[in-house]
Amino acid sequence: MASGRFYLSCMLLGSLGSLCILFTTFWMQYWRGGFAWDGSVHMFNWHPVLMVSGMVVLYGAASLVYRLPWSWVGPKLPWKVLHAALHLLAFTFTVVGLVAVFQFHNHSKITHLYSLHSWLGITTVILFAFQWSMGFAIFLLPWASQWLRSLLKPVHVFFGACILSLSITSVISGINEKLFFVLKNVTKPYSSLPSEAVFANSTGLLVVAFGLLVLYVLLASPWKRPDPGALTDRQNLGCFLLTTPRDVVEAKAEAQM
Amino acid sequence: MASGRFYLSCMLLGSLGSLCILFTTFWMQYWRGGFAWDGSVHMFNWHPVLMVSGMVVLYGAASLVYRLPWSWVGPKLPWKVLHAALHLLAFTFTVVGLVAVFQFHNHSKITHLYSLHSWLGITTVILFAFQWSMGFAIFLLPWASQWLRSLLKPVHVFFGACILSLSITSVISGINEKLFFVLKNVTKPYSSLPSEAVFANSTGLLVVAFGLLVLYVLLASPWKRPDPGALTDRQNLGCFLLTTPRDVVEAKAEAQM
Repeated sequence: MASGRFYLSCMLLGSLGSLCILFTTFWMQYWRGGFAWDGSVHMFNWHPVLMVSGMVVLYGAASLVYRLPWSWVGPKLPWKVLHAALHLLAFTFTVVGLVAVFQFHNHSKITHLYSLHSWLGITTVILFAFQWSMGFAIFLLPWASQWLRSLLKPVHVFFGACILSLSITSVISGINEKLFFVLKNVTKPYSSLPSEAVFANSTGLLVVAFGLLVLYVLLASPWKRPDPGALTDRQNLGCFLLTTPRDVVEAKAEAQM
Repeated sequence: MASGRFYLSCMLLGSLGSLCILFTTFWMQYWRGGFAWDGSVHMFNWHPVLMVSGMVVLYGAASLVYRLPWSWVGPKLPWKVLHAALHLLAFTFTVVGLVAVFQFHNHSKITHLYSLHSWLGITTVILFAFQWSMGFAIFLLPWASQWLRSLLKPVHVFFGACILSLSITSVISGINEKLFFVLKNVTKPYSSLPSEAVFANSTGLLVVAFGLLVLYVLLASPWKRPDPGALTDRQNLGCFLLTTPRDVVEAKAEAQM
């Protein structure tokens, strides 16, 4: 049997990621008046959608490229290019999402970057730009030695996971802040939990669930490219066909005997 | 030379953790009128201090018990007891921190648990209680087999790290929310970045920095109890005296030859 847990995780990640984007879009469309690109609050509405799509869902998908067993065999370069390209797309979404909020602030004479949400969010985007550039320079350009890459790979993976955690933190504080902004001086304020509040709070929890699942697959799952030399390509794919980490460990031990 | 990076990390963790507690306490004392236990807003002021102290700083310290090289040699039980006891202390701080906010809400007729901050915060505390109970049942009580413990250990470590990430997310959204509550309808609102806002925003970034350093030492540092049988006790301590992960890897390879 092909690994049931692997396909279940793929399905869960796909469903949760799609729901995160759909819920955020629906929140902005149904309760916040929809989208425009004119400096108004409808331009702001692109901000949550693009940040959730870029910094969380696309970023999460891009992070997991090497967890696909098909990436474990054959040349690594096409997968590296895919990993970098998806992250660049995520970064592009993020930059457009920032333009949306900055132009809305300019148009409405609102101060930029004063809340903790904005301080943390902009720090996260700067770290993302730094991480992408370092990854490009060290892992994609051909000059770095294998030793340097091996030394920096765990650091790259760890900081990648940190940036996703910080994105989730920024998204949660952003949803919380937005609900306090818009659900005050209204008949049903935030504290009375109107349907918009329940929906947006649930969207926040969906983002958290998606992020934790990405981090689990990234950091704690057994779906990793095995160490070079430990297994042959055929055995690598064999591991993928097994169902438990214990099976994988036993198969590796057998291959090394 | 004893591992410079290890002592540097300990010093950084100690300093950042202390600063997180000191800054939160100073914020509540200097700008928010100090502390009381009478249902007033001064009772609420215990909430941020106890949550930062319990769910972040003490939790972080408790998580890193097995990263101390002294825990790698000799019987593991005393270290397990210390790990569980410190987490229980962190949980106690957390419960008292929740009592502070619930009693303040009761006293001031404020609805409980409506914001995304509170939804995520209470979810985090429930996950913490579940994680502690499972850890106690599986790793401290003597009934579970070595196989079950080995299988569940990475899950326990991963969920421990997730709970810390969620705590940080809750703290950030809580600080952000508190500043929007208290810095409105005042001469210098949040958007004009008065000194309180700069101080509390910085406290939030300190909490993030502390949390990321804990997660780095927990998940990505080489300071782990080596696999049983791979090294003798003397060699384990030898690793601690070395300075780089590369040295540790080479020492292990040498020991296995």
